[in-house]
Amino acid sequence: MNGTLYLLPIHLGESAPWPDVLPQGTREAACRLSRFIVEQAKSARAALKWLGHPLPLQALAIEALPESPTPAEIDRLLAPVQAGTDTGLMSEAGCPGIADPGALVVRRAHELGLPVRPLVGPSSLLLALMASGLEGQRFAFHGYLPQRDPERSRKIAELERESRQKRQTQLFIETPYRNGALLTALLSTCRPETLLCLACDLTLPTEHVVTRRIAEWRSRPASADFYAKRPTVFLLLAR
Amino acid sequence: MNGTLYLLPIHLGESAPWPDVLPQGTREAACRLSRFIVEQAKSARAALKWLGHPLPLQALAIEALPESPTPAEIDRLLAPVQAGTDTGLMSEAGCPGIADPGALVVRRAHELGLPVRPLVGPSSLLLALMASGLEGQRFAFHGYLPQRDPERSRKIAELERESRQKRQTQLFIETPYRNGALLTALLSTCRPETLLCLACDLTLPTEHVVTRRIAEWRSRPASADFYAKRPTVFLLLAR
Repeated sequence: MNGTLYLLPIHLGESAPWPDVLPQGTREAACRLSRFIVEQAKSARAALKWLGHPLPLQALAIEALPESPTPAEIDRLLAPVQAGTDTGLMSEAGCPGIADPGALVVRRAHELGLPVRPLVGPSSLLLALMASGLEGQRFAFHGYLPQRDPERSRKIAELERESRQKRQTQLFIETPYRNGALLTALLSTCRPETLLCLACDLTLPTEHVVTRRIAEWRSRPASADFYAKRPTVFLLLAR
Repeated sequence: MNGTLYLLPIHLGESAPWPDVLPQGTREAACRLSRFIVEQAKSARAALKWLGHPLPLQALAIEALPESPTPAEIDRLLAPVQAGTDTGLMSEAGCPGIADPGALVVRRAHELGLPVRPLVGPSSLLLALMASGLEGQRFAFHGYLPQRDPERSRKIAELERESRQKRQTQLFIETPYRNGALLTALLSTCRPETLLCLACDLTLPTEHVVTRRIAEWRSRPASADFYAKRPTVFLLLAR
């Protein structure tokens, strides 16, 4: 009989205690598992400790998913599930399968006819969208934008144009040390009336969400390194 | 001193007990509030009963947000928050501000400089995306598609084309009694290799998530009324 693949969200930062961000049902499901497919073993062990898994970490099977896994690697990771071992899929932060390579494991689980159970937990993208006040009836997540100009500014202009045409909120992310450069590029590229939200440190004591028109962002510049170490979701809505 | 606007997710269906879908921290924040801005007072009262609010329902201020609120109506609803009363914003199901009119209240709260706190809880869109196994690095939510052909088929073809070009998962929803008609339209419009996921009754005992190629959906047709009463998220990824 097949096991089940549980999709297990974790914290967005260790300073959020689990009862603040995980339902008891999610934690209980995680604590019943002893096998996990993860992005990195080290941070997965920290996450399992954070949620108070009852077994000693050495007793758990924690298997890392390669960044670009081959079909054979995915099948090898899913073989124990086919043989009956319930397994948890975990990301580095937030929800597995969203903005990470875990989706390939879930897709293959469907092909193999394995039951898949998504569990409730924090997602920085979803919390950012809620908190931004921007259009929540139509939105798109684009991952990372190009790192350099002119490609980056061209992409920003394209996203702004598409946002206006479709009345669609555009979400994207950046590696924290480049957040400042991305903000600068947004302020110099977008129209004054466009709404820009920066949502950072979501669920953490330092949580900070600001939505302003580009013109207001320009007149009240953020201190240069405020966003440099904070995981930040960028959201844009053109008008 | 300003109050805080709490963004309070609720269940996707009453048969999910709150400890399965809400963190204790979310429930505690809700139980400390005695004023709520909601979509419909009746279902909001049911949700507050479901999460076991300690006060009698008659003691709570529950104010309905019009479907297309005017700026004056939004300001009236936010005036008590400006005067110091912490207030919870709730949707009919899942997360406020996502696929509902609540975002306008949040946007105005930012303009007024009111603190906004998003709380963790279930979102059918996010759970569907996780569980689908489709592309989670790029995705877009489009709300409802046109109800009639040829507009509906034209929109489906456009979404499929865009999905292939951008490698982007397309999410959309329908009123349950029209789910069957939308599925039929998808099966007749999309290419055989396109992946289609139907995710329904998420978090409920009847949860059901299926991801298949269009060709497979065609060869194993769903029973005509299986989806007719189930809240369903549709997800499409062209290849």
